[in-house]
Amino acid sequence: MTPTQPGASPEQTVTPTPTRHAAVDQLFALLAYGEVAAFYRLTDEARMAPNLAGRINMASMAAAEMNHYEILREALAKRGVDIVPAMTRYASALENYHRLTTPSTWLEALVKTYIGDALAADFYLEIADALPDDAADVVRAVLSETGHSQFVVAEVKAAVTASDKQRHRLALWSRRLLGEAITQAQYVLAEHDELVDFVVSSGEGIGQLTEFFDRLQNTHNARIRELGLG
Amino acid sequence: MTPTQPGASPEQTVTPTPTRHAAVDQLFALLAYGEVAAFYRLTDEARMAPNLAGRINMASMAAAEMNHYEILREALAKRGVDIVPAMTRYASALENYHRLTTPSTWLEALVKTYIGDALAADFYLEIADALPDDAADVVRAVLSETGHSQFVVAEVKAAVTASDKQRHRLALWSRRLLGEAITQAQYVLAEHDELVDFVVSSGEGIGQLTEFFDRLQNTHNARIRELGLG
Repeated sequence: MTPTQPGASPEQTVTPTPTRHAAVDQLFALLAYGEVAAFYRLTDEARMAPNLAGRINMASMAAAEMNHYEILREALAKRGVDIVPAMTRYASALENYHRLTTPSTWLEALVKTYIGDALAADFYLEIADALPDDAADVVRAVLSETGHSQFVVAEVKAAVTASDKQRHRLALWSRRLLGEAITQAQYVLAEHDELVDFVVSSGEGIGQLTEFFDRLQNTHNARIRELGLG
Repeated sequence: MTPTQPGASPEQTVTPTPTRHAAVDQLFALLAYGEVAAFYRLTDEARMAPNLAGRINMASMAAAEMNHYEILREALAKRGVDIVPAMTRYASALENYHRLTTPSTWLEALVKTYIGDALAADFYLEIADALPDDAADVVRAVLSETGHSQFVVAEVKAAVTASDKQRHRLALWSRRLLGEAITQAQYVLAEHDELVDFVVSSGEGIGQLTEFFDRLQNTHNARIRELGLG
């Protein structure tokens, strides 16, 4: 979806402060690193695919991540920011998340894809509400391409319907994914004050961080049920 | 190029025979497998990238391959062909090519990307001339997204300007890439009569196979010079 820009420059619709600007830049850089990290993880995990169709589905999802990256790269370029150096400060949190949640089976890889994508989307959307309009448009454009991971639901459901053991195992796995995601999100916020100030201080935005993480937990639970793991 | 009659639907401009139709389906399936194989090879080879920028360039190129795949998938679906089963018969030739040309350095990976992409493009364009118009349009659409590998030229040129040893080494490497590509192309043609008949019988198309391979060699040589390896 192309961001719409009505007559007035979007930059003028909020009170722009240097801090606020810097926070948006950094948020985009964080999201961008997330896309590239997800790209390489998806392609790694595709090795476990039982067949060509599975490998192709993973490749298509990975390609979609790079299309998102491209949107963020353009948005940052417009803001005068060179994306690659800006991204590197978020490498450790995102690489840690992936390292600590390396799937050991194809089903774990599928669940991680689905849960991870959805958590990222929740996070993006919460943040978008707190952003200046033009920046929110960028975030929503990045998200407009979701839905690629729907192919996961059928495969996971079939597997857990056939096996209680698989269901329990994958339910634990999905809890671990949420736990690690929250841990790493907290690290990012702790190390980057400008992000947390920005996020918490916005009236209609995330509000309080605890409430934010509670909401992530709730939508996560809904998704667990969707996959037949609840 | 096949004679066109204004106003007539593209399917009617050539004499459609079941064999000819089947050959187009199989050509698309071959190209599609090539895109998926290239996707996974690029992401594998990106491990050798010396920095994040290199990894991102490789990921963007890989994502472009999947966009090409999507064009071919849609074209085959319109022709009533399910792409995944159709692709599998070309797996061995393409996997062999990649297995026999696994780069051992980042520069080799870059050269392979550039030469491989270009060879594939040459091959596609030669074939396109021999196709019915609608099918030729699909092939040209797939090719319209080239240019991603231009970032390679600067990096390779800088490296071979600085080191004669690198230049000789990469020149040998590029010769090997061409050799393996031709070998595998010949296997594919030998095992799939319908493709070779289709390709050779077209009057103004590829004509003779030897001439075709000679032309590939010539454009390959031009590219070697472009990379500073000639």
